[in-house]
Amino acid sequence: MAGAAASRMPEIRAAALELFTLHGYEATTMAAIGARVGVRGPSLYKHVASKQELLAGIMVATMDALLAEHARATAGTADPTERLRRAVDAHVRYHARNRLEAFVGNREIRSLVEPHRSAVLSRRAEYELRFRTLVDDGVAAGRFRVSSARLASYAILDLGMGVAAWFRADGELGENEVSWQYTEFALRLVGAD
Amino acid sequence: MAGAAASRMPEIRAAALELFTLHGYEATTMAAIGARVGVRGPSLYKHVASKQELLAGIMVATMDALLAEHARATAGTADPTERLRRAVDAHVRYHARNRLEAFVGNREIRSLVEPHRSAVLSRRAEYELRFRTLVDDGVAAGRFRVSSARLASYAILDLGMGVAAWFRADGELGENEVSWQYTEFALRLVGAD
Repeated sequence: MAGAAASRMPEIRAAALELFTLHGYEATTMAAIGARVGVRGPSLYKHVASKQELLAGIMVATMDALLAEHARATAGTADPTERLRRAVDAHVRYHARNRLEAFVGNREIRSLVEPHRSAVLSRRAEYELRFRTLVDDGVAAGRFRVSSARLASYAILDLGMGVAAWFRADGELGENEVSWQYTEFALRLVGAD
Repeated sequence: MAGAAASRMPEIRAAALELFTLHGYEATTMAAIGARVGVRGPSLYKHVASKQELLAGIMVATMDALLAEHARATAGTADPTERLRRAVDAHVRYHARNRLEAFVGNREIRSLVEPHRSAVLSRRAEYELRFRTLVDDGVAAGRFRVSSARLASYAILDLGMGVAAWFRADGELGENEVSWQYTEFALRLVGAD
């Protein structure tokens, strides 16, 4: 039974993600999530304890995925410019491919209660710090020119997150073109040589 | 009576904006908005026809304010670099000063019904087009180097909108410092000479 219950979780989480995106967390009911995957009220609670747990699961998984992508992106090179290029590439592609996660992740921090809120905020702080460190490293190596590494990291993160709002897989601009342009924007922004 | 009703509107709109920010549009009731300003249920409808009208009013006013700020920012100079600098300055300062409007404006497009949805989307398209035109003008004048003016305008708009998410008036970085840095980021991003 645990196995069967576990196997429905990706489906339940996907339904929750869609409904949180469409209506917002607060206006979404567990009954509506259950209806979407054909699981009646009480049965849904065999799979998941609460709506809050679903939201926290989505948001923590999103940040963990971004942190893992970032680690992979920066693992293969010590060159500051190349490290930032690859980190922005991973960041932009994640947001182009996971638009709903980004939407909910950015909008529903207010809906998280403790300890979930801290779990997500600490991961976000860690992710931002990694970008800031990449910028700091480039400045220290004399490769970037930036007055505030903090503001540069905010700006780079925000322009990448913006991709989630407007990107369409079948749109005029493909993921590669967007990533190439955005990595160049980020490198220009830090004054990379 | 019309005068008295009109005089409560700024207060009612401010209460709606706060509640939309805290709970989302869908989860906010007219009764909750009324309670916040001390106007009982039915009386509230003498001031405003519906929750939808409140949301539309907030979002249209936000875009009209941004368009007006942009027009003022670019009116005084023909130099492409200076025009973009001033437009980004106005964009960033607006988002530092009107954080709730930016929050709701970015999150509640989904909640607007016609004709309000088109009214807001057309203004957003116009605002983006104006930035794209500034970039195009700079490229045409040989002052900027950009492959896609559309992506550059998206990136500039998104990094400015991001300010609304993290800026605090009493924070470590003041509005001036943020604006100076961000205008420099934008000019670097387009490869300004």
